[in-house]
Amino acid sequence: MVPTTAMPIQGQPTHTNDMFLAATPSDRILSIQSHVSFGYVGGKAAVFPLQCMGYDVDVVNTVNFSNHSGYGDFGGTRTTAEELTRLFNLMEQSGVLIPGRLLTGYIPNADSLGAVHELVQKLKTANANLLYLLDPVIGDAGKVYVAENCVPLYRQMLPLATIITPNWFEVEVLTEIPLIDLPSLRAALHKLHKIYQVPNVVISSIPLTKLFTSLPSYLLPPTPTQLTPGTSFTNEINKPLDEEPPYLLCMASSINGDDDLGGGPLSTVYASCVPLIPGYFSGVGDLFSALLLGHFKLTQSVVSCPSSPPSAPPLSPDLSSQSFLAHATSHALSKTHDILTLTHESASLLDLTSSDDELDAREPGRMNRRMKGRELRLIQGQEVFRRKDWDGVKRMATWEGFWKD
Amino acid sequence: MVPTTAMPIQGQPTHTNDMFLAATPSDRILSIQSHVSFGYVGGKAAVFPLQCMGYDVDVVNTVNFSNHSGYGDFGGTRTTAEELTRLFNLMEQSGVLIPGRLLTGYIPNADSLGAVHELVQKLKTANANLLYLLDPVIGDAGKVYVAENCVPLYRQMLPLATIITPNWFEVEVLTEIPLIDLPSLRAALHKLHKIYQVPNVVISSIPLTKLFTSLPSYLLPPTPTQLTPGTSFTNEINKPLDEEPPYLLCMASSINGDDDLGGGPLSTVYASCVPLIPGYFSGVGDLFSALLLGHFKLTQSVVSCPSSPPSAPPLSPDLSSQSFLAHATSHALSKTHDILTLTHESASLLDLTSSDDELDAREPGRMNRRMKGRELRLIQGQEVFRRKDWDGVKRMATWEGFWKD
Repeated sequence: MVPTTAMPIQGQPTHTNDMFLAATPSDRILSIQSHVSFGYVGGKAAVFPLQCMGYDVDVVNTVNFSNHSGYGDFGGTRTTAEELTRLFNLMEQSGVLIPGRLLTGYIPNADSLGAVHELVQKLKTANANLLYLLDPVIGDAGKVYVAENCVPLYRQMLPLATIITPNWFEVEVLTEIPLIDLPSLRAALHKLHKIYQVPNVVISSIPLTKLFTSLPSYLLPPTPTQLTPGTSFTNEINKPLDEEPPYLLCMASSINGDDDLGGGPLSTVYASCVPLIPGYFSGVGDLFSALLLGHFKLTQSVVSCPSSPPSAPPLSPDLSSQSFLAHATSHALSKTHDILTLTHESASLLDLTSSDDELDAREPGRMNRRMKGRELRLIQGQEVFRRKDWDGVKRMATWEGFWKD
Repeated sequence: MVPTTAMPIQGQPTHTNDMFLAATPSDRILSIQSHVSFGYVGGKAAVFPLQCMGYDVDVVNTVNFSNHSGYGDFGGTRTTAEELTRLFNLMEQSGVLIPGRLLTGYIPNADSLGAVHELVQKLKTANANLLYLLDPVIGDAGKVYVAENCVPLYRQMLPLATIITPNWFEVEVLTEIPLIDLPSLRAALHKLHKIYQVPNVVISSIPLTKLFTSLPSYLLPPTPTQLTPGTSFTNEINKPLDEEPPYLLCMASSINGDDDLGGGPLSTVYASCVPLIPGYFSGVGDLFSALLLGHFKLTQSVVSCPSSPPSAPPLSPDLSSQSFLAHATSHALSKTHDILTLTHESASLLDLTSSDDELDAREPGRMNRRMKGRELRLIQGQEVFRRKDWDGVKRMATWEGFWKD
């Protein structure tokens, strides 16, 4: 039994009401992902930022691990499908399974993923307006993190999502389309929107080289002479600039409602080139997805595909779902960037930015020191999450002509 | 495996350095207690406030439950002793078992408590300056929450603690002294300080009736005519004022170094009468203990009993360990009070303040609605934890003559 304890209080209130953040029932988020005791990945990277933004976050841990896998040693327990289902049932019986938003991340095997799938179906049945961000954590750069039989299950879950945040590799795995150029990216996005009925797709780290020649000039990164002093131009392996521009592309695609009527393009695509901070940081995708969900404005019409039965009046042009997605993505990118910058600066002070396999092999503990030094500085940078002054945010631009051959 | 993901960044930093909180290695806290998916008890009540205060908090979950026991339904998994030990070992192997402060709370059975005991011994051996707050969660008001064989283990662990935060009932169980008056309280405190070598003892909710006639007049609560308008004088069962004053006593006792030299009293005792907020809130003790640890100033001489080998120069009078304890307790009480006030106000708006067993029995779901409404408003009141302006804090007074017959 978890103890419940009564406690005394003292004196008179010293706060005024305006000290406190406003909260409504829809501000409750259910987060289902990994837990690590030390460091910031999975729920440890997602929950605190959302709490700082004013959300009550309910937390279900799919694993209880010591630390992330970047350290030589790591491990702990995985929550079984039966344990997950029992937790969900107990929450339902207690009347506390009431999220307005749902965030799912790392789930280690297909059985557990199946339990989460059942939960999502139940929540959507009870609340058609549930805002569900599905981060289909499968792998990265050709390496798969989860059991292979998770992939078909993720495909089944896609139609339940309001937003998905796959990386480049996960788009390839989910759609079975190798991404080599603009036409293949178009085909993959088409499949996600049309076959899998996902209204909003955000891909946050696309290698710029794949699309460089297809990008409109106004979306290209600035040339070196246009760069602000202080921007780093080295990456982990110190490739010369002309060989690989240190930029990635982030794109957000929000489905349009009128394509079946012979109208405009399937979706509106927004994009932004983002400078690469050198080195490898863990938990960044988890942080980004959480911030994206936290910044997404909630309206009835953006939580399901247009082909679903309409349940809300049409939005005014300035409040379209597209602008909601671009708005949320811009702000999530901006806050993620500021935390990464702070983390990189702190790691630089400790001289922990470079990854040198040879030195690591020679000196035991060196890799773990570097990993520790590169844990996200969420606590030290927490003011970023509370920031409500949006003047500094770079807005994403519409990728005009994305769907045109 | 927990995935590690690289992520792009965007634009230039928009923060200035003074936006970020300062942090040092000693700011890292290891918290070992319960986890609930919904609501705020155990780690969910402790971790977020400490993070808001600027601490990196490492989190080991002793249970993973759905919600607290006040709801009709609750449950989940308990972390076994083997699982706890494995987590601690993996953290050690990864070089991330490096807390400057340790907080332990609810641990459901003696085997798990034994694993935590071993960890504390290891941490103290590695770092004699470890600041350890032990909340000996055993029970409350005559009811025991944990396995009975936890009690002797807690007694073995007491000498390792810097601060303990037992409630009235837990002091009775640990010392085997029924607390009925001032002499029995004196005997119990003497045992905790001298036999169990605990340098700092904080008891936060002492029924005032037990000690009313023994308190110096300057420690007594104000008479009704002195009270500020708005202070509530009803409690859950609406007892008239003259029958049971709605106040509790909080006391903090910090051992003195010179009693063996024939000098002053064994400890300096501080006290404060605190008005009782009506009704029952869960997780308040967990929040209070976390805030107490977070506010405690760290010096070498306050982490062990004076009878231990001295390892630090003596402190200047204005930085004595006593003032550290009174300072931390005052601030923890103040912040806890503000959160409780906000929670009570929110529950009042929902008409959820009273506990009416008959109505609960007649209407299913009523109790759970009340429980939900009375979950601590940590998110909505988070500015309280970041507050650095201490003007409004009521300082505890020294209980002069506590040790005199």
